[in-house]
Amino acid sequence: MNREQLRELMEAVQGGNISPDAACDRLKNLPFEDLGFAKVDHHRSVRTGMPEVIYSKGKTADQVAGIFASLAASGVNVLATRATQAQFEAVLRVEERAVFEETAGCITLQQATSAPRHGRVAIVCAGTSDLPVAEEARVTAELMGNEVDMVVDVGVAGLHRLLSQHARLQQAAAVIVCAGMEGALPSVVGGLVGVPVIAVPTSVGYGAAFGGVAALLGMLNSCSPNVTVVNIDNGFGAAYVATLMNRVL
Amino acid sequence: MNREQLRELMEAVQGGNISPDAACDRLKNLPFEDLGFAKVDHHRSVRTGMPEVIYSKGKTADQVAGIFASLAASGVNVLATRATQAQFEAVLRVEERAVFEETAGCITLQQATSAPRHGRVAIVCAGTSDLPVAEEARVTAELMGNEVDMVVDVGVAGLHRLLSQHARLQQAAAVIVCAGMEGALPSVVGGLVGVPVIAVPTSVGYGAAFGGVAALLGMLNSCSPNVTVVNIDNGFGAAYVATLMNRVL
Amino acid sequence: MNREQLRELMEAVQGGNISPDAACDRLKNLPFEDLGFAKVDHHRSVRTGMPEVIYSKGKTADQVAGIFASLAASGVNVLATRATQAQFEAVLRVEERAVFEETAGCITLQQATSAPRHGRVAIVCAGTSDLPVAEEARVTAELMGNEVDMVVDVGVAGLHRLLSQHARLQQAAAVIVCAGMEGALPSVVGGLVGVPVIAVPTSVGYGAAFGGVAALLGMLNSCSPNVTVVNIDNGFGAAYVATLMNRVL
Amino acid sequence: MNREQLRELMEAVQGGNISPDAACDRLKNLPFEDLGFAKVDHHRSVRTGMPEVIYSKGKTADQVAGIFASLAASGVNVLATRATQAQFEAVLRVEERAVFEETAGCITLQQATSAPRHGRVAIVCAGTSDLPVAEEARVTAELMGNEVDMVVDVGVAGLHRLLSQHARLQQAAAVIVCAGMEGALPSVVGGLVGVPVIAVPTSVGYGAAFGGVAALLGMLNSCSPNVTVVNIDNGFGAAYVATLMNRVL
Amino acid sequence: MNREQLRELMEAVQGGNISPDAACDRLKNLPFEDLGFAKVDHHRSVRTGMPEVIYSKGKTADQVAGIFASLAASGVNVLATRATQAQFEAVLRVEERAVFEETAGCITLQQATSAPRHGRVAIVCAGTSDLPVAEEARVTAELMGNEVDMVVDVGVAGLHRLLSQHARLQQAAAVIVCAGMEGALPSVVGGLVGVPVIAVPTSVGYGAAFGGVAALLGMLNSCSPNVTVVNIDNGFGAAYVATLMNRVL
Amino acid sequence: MNREQLRELMEAVQGGNISPDAACDRLKNLPFEDLGFAKVDHHRSVRTGMPEVIYSKGKTADQVAGIFASLAASGVNVLATRATQAQFEAVLRVEERAVFEETAGCITLQQATSAPRHGRVAIVCAGTSDLPVAEEARVTAELMGNEVDMVVDVGVAGLHRLLSQHARLQQAAAVIVCAGMEGALPSVVGGLVGVPVIAVPTSVGYGAAFGGVAALLGMLNSCSPNVTVVNIDNGFGAAYVATLMNRVL
Amino acid sequence: MNREQLRELMEAVQGGNISPDAACDRLKNLPFEDLGFAKVDHHRSVRTGMPEVIYSKGKTADQVAGIFASLAASGVNVLATRATQAQFEAVLRVEERAVFEETAGCITLQQATSAPRHGRVAIVCAGTSDLPVAEEARVTAELMGNEVDMVVDVGVAGLHRLLSQHARLQQAAAVIVCAGMEGALPSVVGGLVGVPVIAVPTSVGYGAAFGGVAALLGMLNSCSPNVTVVNIDNGFGAAYVATLMNRVL
Amino acid sequence: MNREQLRELMEAVQGGNISPDAACDRLKNLPFEDLGFAKVDHHRSVRTGMPEVIYSKGKTADQVAGIFASLAASGVNVLATRATQAQFEAVLRVEERAVFEETAGCITLQQATSAPRHGRVAIVCAGTSDLPVAEEARVTAELMGNEVDMVVDVGVAGLHRLLSQHARLQQAAAVIVCAGMEGALPSVVGGLVGVPVIAVPTSVGYGAAFGGVAALLGMLNSCSPNVTVVNIDNGFGAAYVATLMNRVL
Repeated sequence: MNREQLRELMEAVQGGNISPDAACDRLKNLPFEDLGFAKVDHHRSVRTGMPEVIYSKGKTADQVAGIFASLAASGVNVLATRATQAQFEAVLRVEERAVFEETAGCITLQQATSAPRHGRVAIVCAGTSDLPVAEEARVTAELMGNEVDMVVDVGVAGLHRLLSQHARLQQAAAVIVCAGMEGALPSVVGGLVGVPVIAVPTSVGYGAAFGGVAALLGMLNSCSPNVTVVNIDNGFGAAYVATLMNRVL
Repeated sequence: MNREQLRELMEAVQGGNISPDAACDRLKNLPFEDLGFAKVDHHRSVRTGMPEVIYSKGKTADQVAGIFASLAASGVNVLATRATQAQFEAVLRVEERAVFEETAGCITLQQATSAPRHGRVAIVCAGTSDLPVAEEARVTAELMGNEVDMVVDVGVAGLHRLLSQHARLQQAAAVIVCAGMEGALPSVVGGLVGVPVIAVPTSVGYGAAFGGVAALLGMLNSCSPNVTVVNIDNGFGAAYVATLMNRVL
Repeated sequence: MNREQLRELMEAVQGGNISPDAACDRLKNLPFEDLGFAKVDHHRSVRTGMPEVIYSKGKTADQVAGIFASLAASGVNVLATRATQAQFEAVLRVEERAVFEETAGCITLQQATSAPRHGRVAIVCAGTSDLPVAEEARVTAELMGNEVDMVVDVGVAGLHRLLSQHARLQQAAAVIVCAGMEGALPSVVGGLVGVPVIAVPTSVGYGAAFGGVAALLGMLNSCSPNVTVVNIDNGFGAAYVATLMNRVL
Repeated sequence: MNREQLRELMEAVQGGNISPDAACDRLKNLPFEDLGFAKVDHHRSVRTGMPEVIYSKGKTADQVAGIFASLAASGVNVLATRATQAQFEAVLRVEERAVFEETAGCITLQQATSAPRHGRVAIVCAGTSDLPVAEEARVTAELMGNEVDMVVDVGVAGLHRLLSQHARLQQAAAVIVCAGMEGALPSVVGGLVGVPVIAVPTSVGYGAAFGGVAALLGMLNSCSPNVTVVNIDNGFGAAYVATLMNRVL
Repeated sequence: MNREQLRELMEAVQGGNISPDAACDRLKNLPFEDLGFAKVDHHRSVRTGMPEVIYSKGKTADQVAGIFASLAASGVNVLATRATQAQFEAVLRVEERAVFEETAGCITLQQATSAPRHGRVAIVCAGTSDLPVAEEARVTAELMGNEVDMVVDVGVAGLHRLLSQHARLQQAAAVIVCAGMEGALPSVVGGLVGVPVIAVPTSVGYGAAFGGVAALLGMLNSCSPNVTVVNIDNGFGAAYVATLMNRVL
Repeated sequence: MNREQLRELMEAVQGGNISPDAACDRLKNLPFEDLGFAKVDHHRSVRTGMPEVIYSKGKTADQVAGIFASLAASGVNVLATRATQAQFEAVLRVEERAVFEETAGCITLQQATSAPRHGRVAIVCAGTSDLPVAEEARVTAELMGNEVDMVVDVGVAGLHRLLSQHARLQQAAAVIVCAGMEGALPSVVGGLVGVPVIAVPTSVGYGAAFGGVAALLGMLNSCSPNVTVVNIDNGFGAAYVATLMNRVL
Repeated sequence: MNREQLRELMEAVQGGNISPDAACDRLKNLPFEDLGFAKVDHHRSVRTGMPEVIYSKGKTADQVAGIFASLAASGVNVLATRATQAQFEAVLRVEERAVFEETAGCITLQQATSAPRHGRVAIVCAGTSDLPVAEEARVTAELMGNEVDMVVDVGVAGLHRLLSQHARLQQAAAVIVCAGMEGALPSVVGGLVGVPVIAVPTSVGYGAAFGGVAALLGMLNSCSPNVTVVNIDNGFGAAYVATLMNRVL
Repeated sequence: MNREQLRELMEAVQGGNISPDAACDRLKNLPFEDLGFAKVDHHRSVRTGMPEVIYSKGKTADQVAGIFASLAASGVNVLATRATQAQFEAVLRVEERAVFEETAGCITLQQATSAPRHGRVAIVCAGTSDLPVAEEARVTAELMGNEVDMVVDVGVAGLHRLLSQHARLQQAAAVIVCAGMEGALPSVVGGLVGVPVIAVPTSVGYGAAFGGVAALLGMLNSCSPNVTVVNIDNGFGAAYVATLMNRVL
């Protein structure tokens, strides 16, 4: 029930077409989504240009294709993360404009244009093994309208590689840092920039890396106060938040 | 806003004392608790005879006393769990009828009478060290109107003690089992009765008991399918659920 | 030894056909299941209409088929959980009426009718990935004679979807909530209903979900006191306990 | 700039082709410590109005007082977190304008004024036990120039309390959510707003709360994509990042 | 009901003093301990000379004293483990012959004599910090009638100390090895003797010792196949099992 | 250097064929295994009839076959644990008398006869899924000369099944109990017998069973003092220790 | 060097008081990237004879081959760790002199000769299953110019095997010890030698070995003070550090 | 038995004063420490100048004083770590030259002079809270004859502070790095120097620092291959190993 429908109900009460008691009954089961609640969702979508997102893992190829086609028909940009080649092929059969970003594991459809944004999103990753996560972040960020600056292979064991990119990092509106193993990079980057750093622990490593736990703990304990953390390998989430930070002009 | 107030608003619209638009504005920010949502809470309170409960840990003695007095004034039974002697003394100063159940760590005020219930709640505990948790369950269950049957010190290393209580256990509407260390008792009890068993791991034990984690894991993996689990030392929660199972006649 | 056999023994003693000493010897090794102990099991089966259940994982297809046929011959409803297509095919060869619930991973045989029950069991799940666990619960609950109300895809990030189902939830005798990732749904549902909520953490998620541990911990720490918890992915156990709560009329 | 370029610059200075001041400007971005690196830090300080912060835990009262006095003398706002009454008294002896925020455990000195900011920072906390963490966030945010909107005691077990604050939450530039136990609140809040949510797990709870680990895992696995996480009880860090998001006008 | 009572019942049936039905009723609720079940316990006590044991932790001084006096009156040797000085003083007031083994934290009363045993029990401990656990084992083993051979301070970092005790170790009927930190000693001892080694991890250590977990894991993974493990700091349990292995002649 | 060689050296010194200094030099590097050290190993082998054991996991089929043939040639009984069908086929090519115990995953060769032993070893397992571990224990125990009594499918949720086997259990010299899930069975068995119980946690279960960790913790915290524990799934080790307890007559 | 000092230096250059070259030397330690920072890296490479190393896991065969060829062209020794047969075949196509160390999983190219070193590196491993890790260490150490002494299969359960190698161990400049399961070997070796022991936990074992965690914890808690630890299975890292310890003459 | 005693035995055999058989018997139980085994320990002490070390935690003041006096009498430098003021006072009563290093928690006695060593040991710590651990390392290293270079408060969030110390670090023979929280500093330092880095995780931090576990995991997963790790807070062990690396000239 939106405001128009609510107003009609009030006018019906005023006009005596519906009794106060019957109006109470209708209001008692008021669908929450119609009273502004679901509007928020629509507002947010409009405001951030955020496409609906399909988490493909655990879905069949046909399910992914079905949802993808439905979203594509609505005119928004479409993103399916954690997708396989087989899922992409199913999508292609229903939406031939779809593109597969293989390293990122993402299927995308760019059909809407975004309003210009305040700045760039920098995505930094420690090693080449962290690239799939960084790429998931890049694809997401770009589809959501951000200009992205990728800074790859700047692990802390060779600081000069990172320091040489200092100027580029300082120009970002938000910085995403993907790192596995000891996960030290966000702390170091955090000390170099004056914007929020979104740390993404990756499952890269072996032994006591425990599938990303070592990196996760390192990032949560960062001595740089501008660091916040998302789930292991969650490049999508990091890009989503970075997009919210990188306001539309 | 309760139904009476809502009805008054509708009548004001009907009578022309308030315009439809103004009514929309008032309804737009409608406190959700008043539209049925909070009614549920009140209905539940009436239905289960459940007193409001104060979790005393981390509150000052004055805070506990203040909330206690406020609840007491509303006429319901009052329960404060995890309370200390000092908190009890503060409560006594504002409500002289309050009682301190020392082993349970509970302050209670019994002033409302409950409707009769379907059956009894049995509370079983493995050893004497588990008594504080079992007592928290007993005090809670009794204050909520249940007849309680306590079965103490029937650990699985001496099965005959438990088996001799078989008949009593079979008469319960629900069975709460408190056990620390290996937490095996709920599985054994679960095999003896045909009603739900609510397992409460206790922090009793040392070394690899890990403050109740061993017991918690044991209970979650119970081979008796009628066992569900609550948090470590959560005697209150177990009694709350047992009360819901032990329906009012 | 059942009561009839026990009585015959007593009569033999009375009649002098067996000496007291010989009777003592026979009673000393008395099979416990015959003295009332095993009767309980049979009583429970009759009382709850609970079919014997086969946990198929780790059994060969022939083993599952053999046990299935044996149970089917006894006239009860038969349920095999965690079953594969290959196990189903083996079962079909010995019991052609068997049905395979693919999403639930359950093989069932419905041949007994249950007495009518007090109410319905609601099964709520957070996302479509939680469906296999929710389906295991549904198949179990229905085979045990419950009317089931499925509420799917009502995760807490879009509350309006859940709130719109509020009325349906309030009509349940017990609510099962399946959720992975952060496992927040049972707490929210627990605040909306006045009956026990059985929380089933699912292994859905990645990274710090740790195969369901994050959801499990969230549920154990629920701030809603009517929530109890079963093992990760244990839809069967949740339905078993919900059945015990949903009494036969 | 490599040695050749450096040498060319030196020869240009020697030859009078470039003034010493202009050479200094070019070298300004070289030595990270003294010539630009620390400037970055100063730029950031100016830009965010961020006072230097003293982590008082593990420091003697005299050490805290000494650092506090030194910072106070520089004219900036001063913040000491995790401070005790004894540390505050030592600070008072050297800086009589200092204020002790007891619940937050913060000593503050407000002497600089901040430029107006884009919006407000909302701080939401699940229960009264989470207040010390929320207060640390509030004190930090206010000292850094943010207008703060506190929303207290809106745990997910009573959704109506939270939903009634929906309008206030939607007006924030960033939302900090502090919650212990199951840590479900950030996910729910995340679904209600279109700005970043910074989740702060608190060590509130017992048993399987594991000192905040359950809440931490819940938040990392949030199904709301706008949620990022900081360390357990890290109210300061959350406010620091929220400040960076709430840009100066 | 013991065999004598059972025989009397049979004779009453035989003599017509009680009807078969009434006898059935009495047997139906037969206390399991009376049918041979509890006899086992008594047999075991006689066979192993094992005194009843009081776990004092979490009991009041008066409770410990009361149980101690009761056991003392029955004529057996009495052992109270994890006892404090205050508990000992309470015991002394009711049983003046009681002795306090301070390092072991044990209160003992030796009043029964044990039959001679097959061999000796060797108790080995890695460092002086492990002595309290080793002493709990020694006191227990001696009170249960074993001759004990203590081998102290023979950690694996100085193998010669251990190897010089090789002959003594080989004469034991069972070897208890107490070690904290890395817990390597049981594996080394296990390779030196041909009898079972009972490994007791101790909570000695710091940092990644995790209160005995490192030692526990080391012992569970021992490459010596004659090693079994008990709980952290459980000297009592190790001595109990060693006593069972060191048979009475 | 064995005693004969040592004696020859002494005689050479006595006869003046070697100087004391030269003898010192030879003794200085004395291989430890020859001076009694390795003799222990041989003595133990003779004393326990313990065959050398091959842990096959991680070895190639050819490696297993090679070691197997070498041991077989020495005349002892040979045991290879954790073996595959492929490894067995390789063994068969070099030793046609070898037998494959498929459920146990063991290849055996019985060619030596053992001296009669004191008693029997009972092996109890909770469910049919625990059989592979129990079978590894059985094959090991039998090859080492023990008479074995298998008691299968006596989980604690149906106590009567276990209690009906009480008499058999009481006749064992040692009891091995294999259980997964909550691992409660050893505690219950421990209360029924007066001999050592060797608990073997199995990796059977799902979710919070954590691959045997729940069972392991349960067993370490057993309230029955006669329980000791070995590594998860370590049926071999349990049988090895049971053999040491079941002395040769 | 602050701006004032920098300006003075510039003025000295301008005034001819210092030559451009001398100014360059002073500035040499300023820009870490281009003026000395990377030089450090080169110095280290020269000093340690350390070949560039390729971590092959997660790289395609073509990627490994490409990097390998590029490094080979520069004239240094090349090492690719964690490599597969397929990766080796790709490397062979671009560099026919490459060698595959199968057990170690390493591809090597030896083309540079190292300066003679101070001593030998001993590599000790507990069992044959630890060989792949020990071999990764050996291949690395040899390629970096060390003479290596391998001591295999000297687990602590048969100490005589280790003690017989005592003299060899004492001649090493550094000792690498690889062990899984309980990881006790480094402590024992640490007590036998006067040089640093680098402990490498391996993922060998099952059950409570937790993929090397038990060994890792054991090594971190070593009672031998000359033990340091690297990540699970990190034979490469251990050899790298041992090389640094084994100085060039 | 030392070589002199061994030689006397050989001469007795040669002289016919003892039979070869009797000599065999005496040699059979030969104390291993006398045959070269314990000599190693003495050689090591001489070689490294390493004083015997007292771990004071868990010892009484009198015990520490007794051992301290005994060691002092032998003329070596004496070190007692983890010592309290009370223990120091007890030591002072028996050895008035003893010194208490309060921050380090170390009691020392410097009475022997060490031979000059190859280089310096650098000790780096991230923050002032890490100082107690760094000081334990410094006191240990200095007492063992090393020249020490302390570099304090150079956490990775302000890289310029660390980079400005680059030259000092490069002059060290070994670098000890103490860091809590995320433990990133050793990786960064490892990339700056060409010598071994010994990483000491400290228990500094809160929440997800888990008492040093986050730092420990970070260091074990370091991407700098010259990093090895010791136990949490183990400054002593780090200094011990650094001393072994910093060879005597």
